[in-house]
Order: sequence, then C-alpha cells, then structure tokens
Amino acid sequence: MSIKNQNKKITTLPIAVTMGEPAGIGGELVCMAWARYRKDLPPIVLIDDPIRIKKLGETIKCPVKVIPVSKAIEAIEIWPKAIPVIPLSLKNPVVPGRLDSSNSSAVIASLDKAINLTLNGETKGIVTNPISKSILYSKRFKDPGHTEYLARATKASVAPVMMLVGPELRVVPVTIHTSLANAVRSLCIDDIVHCAIQSADSLYRDFGIDSPKIAISALNPHAGENSAFGNEEISIIKPAIEIIKAKGINVKGPYAADTLFNPEARQNYDAVICMYHDQALIPIKMLDFYRTVNITLGLPIVRTSPDHGTALDIAGTGQANPTSFIEALKLASLIYSKRSNK
Amino acid sequence: MSIKNQNKKITTLPIAVTMGEPAGIGGELVCMAWARYRKDLPPIVLIDDPIRIKKLGETIKCPVKVIPVSKAIEAIEIWPKAIPVIPLSLKNPVVPGRLDSSNSSAVIASLDKAINLTLNGETKGIVTNPISKSILYSKRFKDPGHTEYLARATKASVAPVMMLVGPELRVVPVTIHTSLANAVRSLCIDDIVHCAIQSADSLYRDFGIDSPKIAISALNPHAGENSAFGNEEISIIKPAIEIIKAKGINVKGPYAADTLFNPEARQNYDAVICMYHDQALIPIKMLDFYRTVNITLGLPIVRTSPDHGTALDIAGTGQANPTSFIEALKLASLIYSKRSNK
Repeated sequence: MSIKNQNKKITTLPIAVTMGEPAGIGGELVCMAWARYRKDLPPIVLIDDPIRIKKLGETIKCPVKVIPVSKAIEAIEIWPKAIPVIPLSLKNPVVPGRLDSSNSSAVIASLDKAINLTLNGETKGIVTNPISKSILYSKRFKDPGHTEYLARATKASVAPVMMLVGPELRVVPVTIHTSLANAVRSLCIDDIVHCAIQSADSLYRDFGIDSPKIAISALNPHAGENSAFGNEEISIIKPAIEIIKAKGINVKGPYAADTLFNPEARQNYDAVICMYHDQALIPIKMLDFYRTVNITLGLPIVRTSPDHGTALDIAGTGQANPTSFIEALKLASLIYSKRSNK
Repeated sequence: MSIKNQNKKITTLPIAVTMGEPAGIGGELVCMAWARYRKDLPPIVLIDDPIRIKKLGETIKCPVKVIPVSKAIEAIEIWPKAIPVIPLSLKNPVVPGRLDSSNSSAVIASLDKAINLTLNGETKGIVTNPISKSILYSKRFKDPGHTEYLARATKASVAPVMMLVGPELRVVPVTIHTSLANAVRSLCIDDIVHCAIQSADSLYRDFGIDSPKIAISALNPHAGENSAFGNEEISIIKPAIEIIKAKGINVKGPYAADTLFNPEARQNYDAVICMYHDQALIPIKMLDFYRTVNITLGLPIVRTSPDHGTALDIAGTGQANPTSFIEALKLASLIYSKRSNK
C-alpha cells in the first residue's frame, strides 16, 4: 500500500460510536466532544436515537444530521457541521439517570450495527459508550460485558484482553471483574501468558513499538519475599514468565507492585501485566484520572471505550467530563492508522 | 506546662537512632544526613559501633564522637560538630551487603538501648534503621518485625498499627506482611475498627488535626458492586464503619480503591484505612517514592522509620538515598512536639 493510499484510507472512514445506556452520560459526551473539539477529532458516526441527541444538543447548539446505515461514509462530510446519526428508535422517552429496560433492545441494536459497520469496513472501529449491564441481562445480552459480547459477535479467534492506556502508563489486568479472593484463586499461568502475548502484539501493531518491553507484577506484597508472604510468584508467575520469554518477548518480573509505578520504574517497560483489577487501576487512575482509555486486544476490529461508567448520578446535568471519551476516539483512530500501515 | 517549658523540653532531647542491619545502608544514611543536612535536622544520638561509623564517614568528612549511654543528652551539643554515638561492639567486621549472624546481638542491643533511653525520657523517640529479620530470628528476636518487638518491649496496651505518611497522603494497611490470599481471609471487623481508632487518635495527637476525617477503602473492585464481585464490603467493612461511626469518628466508605487516590478524592480525608499492603503502598509510593515514612501507632513512645529495607545490593556504594531517613527524623521530632503540647 502506498503512503497516499494509506492516508486516504485513514482519513476517509468515520468511527462508529454506540449509544450505550441512554439514561447515562454517553449522549452528552458526544455532544460536548463535538461542540468543543470537533476540529481536532476524527469524524464519528453515532448510532443512536436522533430525537434524544437533538434534545441533549440543544443547549450547547449541537445540530444533528440523520444518515441511513448504508451511508456511514457521509459522516466524514457532515462532521464539521453536525453530529452524523444513524437512527435507532427508543421505545420510551429517556429520563437521565433512570434506567428503563424497555430501551435495552435499542442499546444492543446500536452495538450490533457498530460491529457490522466495522466488520464491513465502513467504519474504522468502534468507541463504545458505557452500558448498564444489569438491565441488559434480561435481553439478548448474555455476556459479562461489552468486551465478551464483541469477541463473540466478531468471532474473535482468541480470548479478548483489556488494556488500559493513559498518557504515562499502560496496564493489563489478568483478572478483572471478580472478587479479590477469586482473583487470587483463579490466577493461572495460561492467562498471564495470554495477556502478555496480546500486549506485546498490541504494543507492536497498535503503538508502533518495535521491541516492546513487558513488566510482570507480583501478586503478593514484596513479590512474596521468597514465599514468606505467598507462593504464587514461584508457582504461577515465574513459570509464566519463562513461557513468555521462550516466545521471544522481552519480559521481566515478577516485580513488587508497590515499587513498580513510580516515575523511575516506569522508564523500564512499555506495559505492565497486573494480577488483579485494582493493582492496575489504582496507578493508572492516579496518574491521569480522566485521560485513561480502555482498548480491547484480541479482536479482529479496533475497539476502545472511555474508562468510566454510565454515571447515572450526574447524567443530564452537564457535569460529565468528555476527556476519556475524546481520548478513546483519538486512540481508536490512531490504532486503525497503525494497523493499516503494518 | 508553660510554653517556655514545652519549648525547652522539645529542643533539649536527641532522637535515638538504631544501628539496624550493619551490612545494610543504615549507617551511611546517618552519615549522609549529618554531612548534608545537620543544620536543619533535630539532633540524634546513634547507637552503633563507632569504628564502623568512623570508617563509613571518612570519605564524606563526617566525624564521630563517642558518648556513654548515661550521657545521651550531650548529643545535643555534639551534633553540630560530629555524629554522637553511644558505642556498641560488633563481633565481626562488617562487609557491606554481606549478612553475618554473629553481629545480630549488637543489632538487638542497639534497639534495646534506644527503647530504654526513650522510656526513661532521655531521648524524644526512636528512628529505627532497617533490619534483616531473617538473620535475627535465631537470636532473642522472636517477633515478626521491629513493630511487634517494640510493642512488646514497651508494654504497649494496644496492638501496634503501621501508618505510612507522605507529603500528600497518609495510609494505614489493616493487613500487612502476609500473602494476598491470607489478607483476604484474615480481614475482620475488629482489625478495621482498631486501625481506624488508632489513626483518628494519631491524626489528632500527632498531626494536630482537630476533627480527623477517615476514609475506608473497599477490598474488591468497584467496592464489590453490590456483591457482584465479593461480599466483604457488606459482611465486614460496612459493619466496621458503623462501629467506628458510633465512636464519634468522622468516617466514610467503603470506597472503590481505584478512584480513592486521585488529587480530588484526596481532598476528602486525612487518612485512608486500606485493606491490604499494596493497596496502601502503591499510591503512597507513587506520590513520593523517597519521602514516605513509617510511624508505629499505639506505642507509649514515638517511633518512626524510613520506608525502605536494608538495600544490601547498594550498601557501601554511596548510592543510598537518605530522604526517607531524614523525613523519619523530622516526623519523630514533630510528633514528640505535638504530643508534648497536648
């Protein structure tokens, strides 16, 4: 592919953005992003109910232009003037902050349309707005979350992996949404190896790092201090590191987690494989609370999402902060560009 | 006590500093602190082998003056001109970085002397240099660490509690040097309540905060998300919070740990009670890796220590950073002053 063609491809597709939970902050984040930053953002096409988006956009003078799903490409030209919306109908009017399971079908339909558009090459990738999983479970949504739904719907060949990316740190939790007790019980060699391989692959493909350096965190305090405080470093993490090394990946560890995230230590790696949710999330959210983005590794398409929830408590008040959503858009576009150039 | 007397008391006692592991970095930290910062530091009396300290101090022109244990007070006048040392003899010459159990008796004797001096009111408190526990266990040292040894030797009326203090954060881990699996298993209402009471007391007595605000961290990701990811928030942490509240302490929680340590969240509390070691240590070491100090709450005497180990790998090379040791000296003096004024 010539440079010219690469650039053409990169600049001529929009990013599909899903509705997410309509009672949450997703819709207003799109309006805020458009109103304040549209010139600096990659064009998007929102798959949502145009009536609610018009209403959300009224106060900040954010016009909406409806386009049919077959014309997603038109979003590129519309973007400087209005938010391009592929329309979906909600069963009930939305009350910000109040969940309504009647609208769950539309939430899922938005996700499905975004997946199809991206698999068909009509959008660069997907940025998902946050969903409220509890009210989706009664519908066709049988997966623990977005990530697993996307893996199934895109027929991903490997288990998906969550990477969190901030301006100064990338972390990959091996265990995620489970109790800490279960995180410890379920930690296994295969999952650590899988996360490290997917991370090394992403650092190369998505971030353009030719020789990625991976650090592996310990599970126990002081990395177990020679089994005095737990044995998982010896029985699980070190054997995993040997397997990862044998695959030619530049990997080191296990490192005690409390000394792994200061500025000096961060110079020594491109990403950290963490053993549980808060071990990854405490440092990345401390470094930049609003700028953290979630990427799903292991999918055949590009998918990012803002690293926050539906924020029902502030939905509709204009208090939501669009920074993570904006970073998710930029990162999706960047990753698409990097993958297209490989 | 009149203001005059208070000031007199505060300025006329030295701080007892223990030898710690002689093969570690403790001795050179004392020399560095004296050489670079003695004018800004509270006077100390070091309980150590004067021959080894003289040798360590030679290159940085750091003279040593030996005083008998009965004359600790003389350290005040000696301090501007030399390091005052109450002498102890080591059985073998020290090789930096090489542990030698023959010298363990002297390590323990230094600690005992510091305790006696402080209990007798001859020193303000104790700053302990790091020890190597593994080689002490064969001697009279039967406790898991410094903290427990001090609690027993000072006949503390309550179980000791470790608080870590940095320039921007104070944290108190409820479970400490144990595997993460055991930290989860052993977490109990009584320990959380005890840590919160001791912390509130210390914030008032030692830091001069009239109405301390305590935050309690959750154990599980998203604070358990209504039992979806673990039940300890409901079965252990919330009941503990009710008991703490009933004691008139301003306490809130449990808070998801990943959103508890960013700058905005830190405005809402004076200390966080954390459920396990790395939950407390990751954030405090990220905020200021070198300036973190360990205080033992619940003792009848003041005791602080630098928040690092013996660093055998760099002992004797001059690479050690004395910042945490210096902060430990300053904090011990400050706490002594606050307690004396109450």
